[in-house]
Amino acid sequence: MNMHMIDIIAKKRDGNALTQQEIDFVIKNYTQGLIPDYQMSAFLMAVYFNQMNDEESTYLALAMRDSGDVIDLSSIEGVKVDKHSTGGVGDKVTLILGPLLASLGVKFAKMSGRGLGHTGGTIDKLESIPGYKVELPVKKFIKQVQDIGIAIVGQSGDVAPADKKLYALRDVTATVDVIPLIASSIMSKKLASGADAIVLDVKVGHGAFMKTEEDAIKLAELMVSIGRLAGKQMTAILTGMDEPLGHKIGNALEVYEAIETLNGQGPKDLVAVTVEIGAHLLLDAGIESDFETAKIRLHEALQNGTAYQKFLDLVEAQGGNLNALDDPSKLLSKKTVSILAEKEGYITDINALDIGKAAMRLGAGRETKEDLVLLDVGLDLHLKIGSYVKKGDKLATLYVRDKGIEEAKKLILSAIQIGNEQKHLELIRKTIK
Amino acid sequence: MNMHMIDIIAKKRDGNALTQQEIDFVIKNYTQGLIPDYQMSAFLMAVYFNQMNDEESTYLALAMRDSGDVIDLSSIEGVKVDKHSTGGVGDKVTLILGPLLASLGVKFAKMSGRGLGHTGGTIDKLESIPGYKVELPVKKFIKQVQDIGIAIVGQSGDVAPADKKLYALRDVTATVDVIPLIASSIMSKKLASGADAIVLDVKVGHGAFMKTEEDAIKLAELMVSIGRLAGKQMTAILTGMDEPLGHKIGNALEVYEAIETLNGQGPKDLVAVTVEIGAHLLLDAGIESDFETAKIRLHEALQNGTAYQKFLDLVEAQGGNLNALDDPSKLLSKKTVSILAEKEGYITDINALDIGKAAMRLGAGRETKEDLVLLDVGLDLHLKIGSYVKKGDKLATLYVRDKGIEEAKKLILSAIQIGNEQKHLELIRKTIK
Repeated sequence: MNMHMIDIIAKKRDGNALTQQEIDFVIKNYTQGLIPDYQMSAFLMAVYFNQMNDEESTYLALAMRDSGDVIDLSSIEGVKVDKHSTGGVGDKVTLILGPLLASLGVKFAKMSGRGLGHTGGTIDKLESIPGYKVELPVKKFIKQVQDIGIAIVGQSGDVAPADKKLYALRDVTATVDVIPLIASSIMSKKLASGADAIVLDVKVGHGAFMKTEEDAIKLAELMVSIGRLAGKQMTAILTGMDEPLGHKIGNALEVYEAIETLNGQGPKDLVAVTVEIGAHLLLDAGIESDFETAKIRLHEALQNGTAYQKFLDLVEAQGGNLNALDDPSKLLSKKTVSILAEKEGYITDINALDIGKAAMRLGAGRETKEDLVLLDVGLDLHLKIGSYVKKGDKLATLYVRDKGIEEAKKLILSAIQIGNEQKHLELIRKTIK
Repeated sequence: MNMHMIDIIAKKRDGNALTQQEIDFVIKNYTQGLIPDYQMSAFLMAVYFNQMNDEESTYLALAMRDSGDVIDLSSIEGVKVDKHSTGGVGDKVTLILGPLLASLGVKFAKMSGRGLGHTGGTIDKLESIPGYKVELPVKKFIKQVQDIGIAIVGQSGDVAPADKKLYALRDVTATVDVIPLIASSIMSKKLASGADAIVLDVKVGHGAFMKTEEDAIKLAELMVSIGRLAGKQMTAILTGMDEPLGHKIGNALEVYEAIETLNGQGPKDLVAVTVEIGAHLLLDAGIESDFETAKIRLHEALQNGTAYQKFLDLVEAQGGNLNALDDPSKLLSKKTVSILAEKEGYITDINALDIGKAAMRLGAGRETKEDLVLLDVGLDLHLKIGSYVKKGDKLATLYVRDKGIEEAKKLILSAIQIGNEQKHLELIRKTIK
């Protein structure tokens, strides 16, 4: 095989599809430092303009998956499931979905990243429970799933290092917003996670990475295609991110809301998304065959305490202090600030992105990898789009330490629009199976 | 000024025109190593797809010019002229045009590169005259032009280093074939050369960089526009490179043919291109006002010995041995190989690129910067397209040392097509003023 990177750049530049051998060549040699960044970035820009088809995107995802560790879950009996959200503000679905599914017999073996964002990742959130150990050796991780059906840990080993290197380059060369590259990046990590069935929650709206439904559908369809070509059971749902999901944003705050939800007291939108994803996975796992029945079983498990019991099993298995969960409000900062409505009317918009930024300013999230996340800060939005408020009503409670308070207040006040029209949002927009 | 390269990449990626400030920022910081190659190559690929308009291309040429030394010829009285060819096989026009114009009172102050190619550059060719010094201090260079109207020397100083750095990057990132980048690259060096009037000879055809007339016209028009926006008198002509220019290809061989031409014995096509360019420059220099009259004066100067006398003045001024020119055939290798026609008919094609490659194989040109050029090797094509040959007639004489002979023979035999049709080529295709 006598390939040259310059010929591959030219081939993509000229609008031709690359072969699996060519994509493997690019990823292997780039990861090893044999292809320099300056050739890779020219290639990425050519991909920006000429895109990649489903096969190329799959080859790319597979090549990036194979650049690092691939988790082998085959020793766990049954269908292993996974979910991924493209990232929304207030999205704590994994914290609820995992125990919920495990309580119905589904195997939920989740390795989760920390990442950048308005709040920490799932792992940061779980760390707000005193004692919860996010690092488990792979053997213990697998044993726990065999024993209680669920484990949620931080990524161990070196998952898709090619993707990490490529993402860092895309970030500084204006080649982030390329759907085949986004899809391959996400899927390389999902395919490394060892699950048999995956549901993707593709967020759409002004608080999401994908601003238009058209782009979100393209991304969703491509990821489903990649996963299927790689032999996985795939579903994607498009959900609205026009306002934050649920009420609470922040690490401990989201654990708090997850506990409420697991006790049947969850906000409608958060429950709806969780149950929608859960129902697809119950079907994929072969536990239910009818979608509506599956949803009913999931609602029941949230109401009757079995889902919450599984959550307690999870926390206990991973060393968390169960007493701390008796009153989860103790996990939150004691210092609070209220934000009051300045006029009367319907809430017509809650700009999720600005709300997320407000949480980040308070310290709930990371802007750079080195930032320390504060677990006990964040905000609780008391109202949703469509709610009616009077002047002076409490719009939100901030849980703060000593930073970012004024900035957060300003962001939240300008994020929440009050008007005359009562809007109704469509939350679950589309299912791609 | 708080600019970021990533924003400039994104702006070009999105199809927007850049400002002069932005292009200056890119070139200055890239030359200083403050913008990394990987951002520049992503930018170049975005330019490949979205091109640059005339203004952007001009800003780019000016920024690259200003990255290095700009020659100041203002102390030389009168209009200083320059010419540039985009590169053809057998193109020795500068060797003839310079003395020819100087003999009619035009100031010809030429700094020429060596470069890569089928043969060496103008400077290599002149070095085949024993004693000819191609390196002169700028002061002496200017003095010589003041005294005898002409000097042809190698590039001194650091001309357009940004272009050199950029070209090296384009070469390995599949971004060479981008007309605005080609035009800016050529013009950055032309604008640094200090001339007031410039004629560009844009070659078109299978032996040229521009394969189609459409692309050649685009390139020519853009370069004329850049030069004019930078305050120069500009003309471009499109000339055919369907067969080599003249008969002789090789360093000393081209000096030989230049001497023949300066003595009124030049091949028709070579004389035609030289006189066409010369006439434009005679007009630009204000020495003639009528194009046809200008051409007549140029033909006369080639016939009556004044142009050749100026060539001798030039050689003498730069230290060359005039005795060596009494019989220029002595400059050629004594070892020759004849190539005979294998059938009878009209010559229907002489693939200039393959002829050029044959000369290079014999050692006449450089494939890499480090290659040594052999001055006395090359080839003499005895016939042109449209000539009639009988089987066994001599097609070409190779002047060789000991390398590349068989390869060159094979290339030449396959380059020369013999058929039944007598073709007539159009040499001067278009003038852009």
